[in-house]
Amino acid sequence: MLKDMLCRRTTIRRYRKEDVSDALIDELLDSAMRTQTMGNLQLYSVVRTRSEEMKQRLLPTHFGQPMVVDAPVVLTICADFHRTTRWCEEREAQPGYGNVLSLMNAMSDALLFTQTFSLLAEEAGLGLCYLGTTIYNPGQIIDVLGLPQLVMPVATLTVGWPDERPVISDRLPLSAIVHEETYHDYSRADIDRLYQPKEALPENREFVRVNGKQTLAQVFTDCRYRREDNEAMSETFLETMRRQGFMV
Amino acid sequence: MLKDMLCRRTTIRRYRKEDVSDALIDELLDSAMRTQTMGNLQLYSVVRTRSEEMKQRLLPTHFGQPMVVDAPVVLTICADFHRTTRWCEEREAQPGYGNVLSLMNAMSDALLFTQTFSLLAEEAGLGLCYLGTTIYNPGQIIDVLGLPQLVMPVATLTVGWPDERPVISDRLPLSAIVHEETYHDYSRADIDRLYQPKEALPENREFVRVNGKQTLAQVFTDCRYRREDNEAMSETFLETMRRQGFMV
Repeated sequence: MLKDMLCRRTTIRRYRKEDVSDALIDELLDSAMRTQTMGNLQLYSVVRTRSEEMKQRLLPTHFGQPMVVDAPVVLTICADFHRTTRWCEEREAQPGYGNVLSLMNAMSDALLFTQTFSLLAEEAGLGLCYLGTTIYNPGQIIDVLGLPQLVMPVATLTVGWPDERPVISDRLPLSAIVHEETYHDYSRADIDRLYQPKEALPENREFVRVNGKQTLAQVFTDCRYRREDNEAMSETFLETMRRQGFMV
Repeated sequence: MLKDMLCRRTTIRRYRKEDVSDALIDELLDSAMRTQTMGNLQLYSVVRTRSEEMKQRLLPTHFGQPMVVDAPVVLTICADFHRTTRWCEEREAQPGYGNVLSLMNAMSDALLFTQTFSLLAEEAGLGLCYLGTTIYNPGQIIDVLGLPQLVMPVATLTVGWPDERPVISDRLPLSAIVHEETYHDYSRADIDRLYQPKEALPENREFVRVNGKQTLAQVFTDCRYRREDNEAMSETFLETMRRQGFMV
């Protein structure tokens, strides 16, 4: 059962030296294509990286995270309106997908597909790391992989056979994310109730200490996901949307 | 096995009159929270709609699609940086998440979570319809559900016990979506090879005929996903990003 697999899953960053065959990856990708997709257009593509040279070129785009070169396979999943546009061009149809909404449609398709693939791969015993850095440096990834207009990288998975068993990470209680009928805002008491168990975990207290901060939230705002970085990367993302033809 | 379930799955738009318990939905949402998430921040929320009144209010935002009122449960999944921001505010941290990159981060978290939930629900025998219309009318959904700043609806699922068995829809061959090392562009011959099987299906030929078009691609460009609609909805989406505080 998927449920049983999920309660044990963790992100895997260390892989055995053993290869993962193209046949296995293909089988999993093929199954993942059953994911619902807008108008059955399948607005995604996958670039498979195996060569050392290409992994080395991708490495700086992911801030040097070693999984990019250590994993036998790296998959870059892209929102893709290019293929559909090429189809339209060859069929006397006038495509109109160079806009923000179409990018959002294709991103949705690509991310839903990515997650189905991830769960299939984990069910098959593979270990994955999802690299959120993909949308921090989309322009560089576009250059390395040769992505044409109307293609935007949205997710990267490093894939291999697990060589570690990390502890299962904590989650907020379900009541933190579910709202009945309308959104209820969070009072100070709600925030305390929902976040105090996470803040009290020894690993999180240590995380605050080594970063020299007073609160766990400050580790996020001051070290991990800082306003100035987010704003600079937002500019980069908007520029890349223009470059790829998604802003009219 | 997830793989066996996937090869049979279809979108379900007709539901039996039987209820789906909150306990079951909660159990599935709780499992879905095991999905990887940026910095373990869980940048998503779910608004659960059960009341007739709220379903009626959501109905026009989804262009009157009857599943919205026919399904026992409607879930609107939102990219949510509001809760994390509230946490930061209560913990002497200065949040900086009112920008495009942060919206993309939260959208990614929300869509990966949505897909895990979908597969869990389908494995439990439920039927789902994913409403892509959520991002066509985000402003109206925000009004109906009372979503605060830094919350954006990104996906809606109508959920119930299946009362139909639709035929399994076709997919492109895997070679249409996979690229080795770099993106290979599509020649005319590639497009023919990849799309002709789809175009030859009796249901798609009928789809072209009833729409009075020459090609299947024209049904998409002229009827289903038109440039003028996409451009108008792109403006709406950008305005809603500003309204929700995601554009500086």
